[in-house]
Amino acid sequence: MEPPAHEPSTAIGDLGESAVLARILPRLAPGDAAHLGAGDDAAVVAAPDGRFVVTTDLMVHGPDFRLAWSTPSDLGWKAAATNLTDVAAMGARPTALVVAIAAPPSLDVGVLEGIADGLREGLTALAPGAGVVGGDLSASSVLMISVTAFGDLEGRAPVLRSGARPGDVIAHAGGRGDAARGLALLFARARDERGEPDAAAAAALRTEHPRLVAAQLAPTPPVSAGVVAAEAGATAMLDVSDGLARDARRIAEASGIGIDFRSAALGPDPLTALAGAEDHGLLAAFPADVPPPHPFEVIGVATAEAGVLTLDGAPVDTAGWDPYAGWDGVGG
Amino acid sequence: MEPPAHEPSTAIGDLGESAVLARILPRLAPGDAAHLGAGDDAAVVAAPDGRFVVTTDLMVHGPDFRLAWSTPSDLGWKAAATNLTDVAAMGARPTALVVAIAAPPSLDVGVLEGIADGLREGLTALAPGAGVVGGDLSASSVLMISVTAFGDLEGRAPVLRSGARPGDVIAHAGGRGDAARGLALLFARARDERGEPDAAAAAALRTEHPRLVAAQLAPTPPVSAGVVAAEAGATAMLDVSDGLARDARRIAEASGIGIDFRSAALGPDPLTALAGAEDHGLLAAFPADVPPPHPFEVIGVATAEAGVLTLDGAPVDTAGWDPYAGWDGVGG
Repeated sequence: MEPPAHEPSTAIGDLGESAVLARILPRLAPGDAAHLGAGDDAAVVAAPDGRFVVTTDLMVHGPDFRLAWSTPSDLGWKAAATNLTDVAAMGARPTALVVAIAAPPSLDVGVLEGIADGLREGLTALAPGAGVVGGDLSASSVLMISVTAFGDLEGRAPVLRSGARPGDVIAHAGGRGDAARGLALLFARARDERGEPDAAAAAALRTEHPRLVAAQLAPTPPVSAGVVAAEAGATAMLDVSDGLARDARRIAEASGIGIDFRSAALGPDPLTALAGAEDHGLLAAFPADVPPPHPFEVIGVATAEAGVLTLDGAPVDTAGWDPYAGWDGVGG
Repeated sequence: MEPPAHEPSTAIGDLGESAVLARILPRLAPGDAAHLGAGDDAAVVAAPDGRFVVTTDLMVHGPDFRLAWSTPSDLGWKAAATNLTDVAAMGARPTALVVAIAAPPSLDVGVLEGIADGLREGLTALAPGAGVVGGDLSASSVLMISVTAFGDLEGRAPVLRSGARPGDVIAHAGGRGDAARGLALLFARARDERGEPDAAAAAALRTEHPRLVAAQLAPTPPVSAGVVAAEAGATAMLDVSDGLARDARRIAEASGIGIDFRSAALGPDPLTALAGAEDHGLLAAFPADVPPPHPFEVIGVATAEAGVLTLDGAPVDTAGWDPYAGWDGVGG
């Protein structure tokens, strides 16, 4: 092999903004809702309902991901998936994203190309027809991906956290604890002796436990189930990002109900199912006479004991994820 | 004075996400377009036109701002102002923002409160009725503010960069070079002997040159002029963020025209007026028979020489801002 000494640099700081955009934009499509995509001061997106749903989420290298564990494509996929699930949790159909990325000038453009590929693939898989309508690139000492996602309610009322009533069935669609199990494996077995993320060990773990590692690094949340739940008459719904118990508590407090979980519905390890964060499933309440539609599964019932969470009638207390408390300040 | 040894910490990492949000959200209002503001998985915003305009912009500590120079309120104001101008440049009325902030756990919550105050004050001054409908907080080693802004076209076609025709008058609203003059003053006189930003010197400079320093740190772009221009029949428009010449070239290339600037309209220092970045004025083209509405001023004419920029007929070539090429990698 010849040394690559005479290869032109592919660091984004050497390429410059225009050249970087020229390599990223062809990997993305603006989607069916775009009246006008990237390239002007702003995009124009269809909102046939006369309202639009909007959510925003930041992923930061270190606290939220590590490049030694995630591929660039994983990052784009996860950034799309987490935001699309928040749109779905309102009962809306995702229509579009905008994506702002801050990156070190030394970063290889291939990383941004991979992020763009993951965004496109995530959109295609989870919300066909939705696209990326705009974005921004900035320089930073740390890689950050900021996604803002939009959806259309198609004439329906948004499904809030506050509409559940005693007697409703509590149902869930998506993974229960797998993302946390994947993260625990990565922490236990994909760090070197100094505690730093180890890329080779992560790759080996990916081969050994593909489902659990993917649940953490490139989750496949049930995005299309959001509209299905809204059409079936869900009284409350939310994206389970901080753990089933912690997010159930949000519905319980907003709705003035309690929730009694059934351990038999939570698998062999109900406490991990209740505590594990980042599954990005959908937790919803349905009136007792409404059978929860596929892929929802009944996991409990709404009680009249406001704010009280129980498992087979016994008290439950599990902590979830806090973006400040959960990070030790060490990079990735 | 007693030492503050027993004061409880106000670092955001010690307070935790819920307590931080409880201090920030009361400083922000969701605005007239919000059907549903912060607090659920996503917000719901009115889009009476059946479309919405969306733009996103990232500000990163170091390349985009320095806490030694900008107050937290300046940062919030500028983040609102720059995004609102992009919405205005489409001929849309700004309706709402979402704001994602990544911050070090050691950051004092007062900084985030100040950013929120600046966002609110900027919205009130520049786009009355528009508000903050949602956001996200993340941990990071570097402070970053990501704003996504929305607007309503009120039935009008968006004003693109591509609609100018030979013979159109070229008009501009807003500052011409003042933001760059303010930045040059800060670089020249508000850094210490090691080149690091110096807060005391910046404060003194603010007293001595309030207009130029404010033009850089907390600009007041002509946001309401965007709708005025669209209603008057502007054929093309854009936000001048990278310098008048560089952004004029974007209109020229998209529209297939040339632009001849008149030096007499550009003040005593036409080259600084053409080169200076970050003024966030609006550059627009109007048909020759349409007098540009207040506050637009005629600064040139569209010619048939596609892509050629001239000043009183002589060639112009000025460089603008590139987010990667323009940053030396040194922090703020």
